[in-house]
Amino acid sequence: MKVGILGTGHIGSGLGKRWAENGHQVFFGSRVPEKAAALAKTIGHGALFGTYQQTCAFAEVILLAFPWSACDAALQSCGSLTGKILIDCINPLGNDYRSLTIGYSTSVAEEIAKQAPGAKVIKAFNSISDKVIRLGADFNGQKASAFYCGDDAEAKVAVQELISTIGFEPVDCGALKTARYLEPMAVLLINVAMNGYGSNIAFNLLQR
Amino acid sequence: MKVGILGTGHIGSGLGKRWAENGHQVFFGSRVPEKAAALAKTIGHGALFGTYQQTCAFAEVILLAFPWSACDAALQSCGSLTGKILIDCINPLGNDYRSLTIGYSTSVAEEIAKQAPGAKVIKAFNSISDKVIRLGADFNGQKASAFYCGDDAEAKVAVQELISTIGFEPVDCGALKTARYLEPMAVLLINVAMNGYGSNIAFNLLQR
Repeated sequence: MKVGILGTGHIGSGLGKRWAENGHQVFFGSRVPEKAAALAKTIGHGALFGTYQQTCAFAEVILLAFPWSACDAALQSCGSLTGKILIDCINPLGNDYRSLTIGYSTSVAEEIAKQAPGAKVIKAFNSISDKVIRLGADFNGQKASAFYCGDDAEAKVAVQELISTIGFEPVDCGALKTARYLEPMAVLLINVAMNGYGSNIAFNLLQR
Repeated sequence: MKVGILGTGHIGSGLGKRWAENGHQVFFGSRVPEKAAALAKTIGHGALFGTYQQTCAFAEVILLAFPWSACDAALQSCGSLTGKILIDCINPLGNDYRSLTIGYSTSVAEEIAKQAPGAKVIKAFNSISDKVIRLGADFNGQKASAFYCGDDAEAKVAVQELISTIGFEPVDCGALKTARYLEPMAVLLINVAMNGYGSNIAFNLLQR
């Protein structure tokens, strides 16, 4: 798959690396071209780089991996997003990094869908720590789950493939507005981590 | 432990049964005395019954297992709750049973703590389905986690014991205000269940 990554932080670089290693054509976009170039070089596997606009023109699937505070400006510099699949992994964290700044009756994912009406928005990868993305989904034989939600069935198939390809167990949580509960889940994970469990933890959905 | 259960619904009766079977002295309270009497009789193991006030006078630990809409009236009919440990398993569900009516900047647990200032409130058992409480925590060798939070260390020890005694893995999520993220987690579970997974599912915290 042609995957664009907007943002060169821990989550963007971590997922980009894993996808590139697993045969996907990754294109890193940054507002600072040198950052994207350096990241693409480090990761190798034919990773490309450029501006946000170049990334979005190239990719079928675009991971939004910038902070929530940068979202408005970022989306404006993307060019057309019509028909693109946007993976939103953003959590609207407060300054303490353990609370939410929006929620309950809306979500980042729904706000992005309003701002990019021609795109197919999927919430995913927001409740997995960057450490777990880097170290992998296997916890002594148990697989970490990757919870996602969205309103477009085709986009969900693509995201499910991007989840499975790096070893996580996809869990389809339903409609995009379920992001209202996926974003707090990330904050729960952060609170548990900071309460002595550390960041090498993940949620798993048990079924029987 | 002397455990009071306020409410005779699925969660209250399910947890009461499991605790009674595991050696705890359970006292069922209901606004309709006949309901509590019938439940105590069905469960056996020396289970007692009475009014809300009698339940609270008897018990050290009290499970609040009534709907959020009934909470104000219920707390008023409890008598003194000073020094008691209150386990809040309530989710403020919307009419569709898959959304929240409060959240993000407060939680049921924090509201209850305000209404019962002498009590020690712990949020627990709100993100486990009544089916899983009934059938047990074991999922083919993996244990379902029971996420809880609160501000009183002694109360946490008691609740941790009530979690472990029925086979769940206790996960201390931190301060009571973390309930802002535990309540959405329950709604996430409901949405996943209704999205084709069914209610025989549970969250597990993976650690390595």
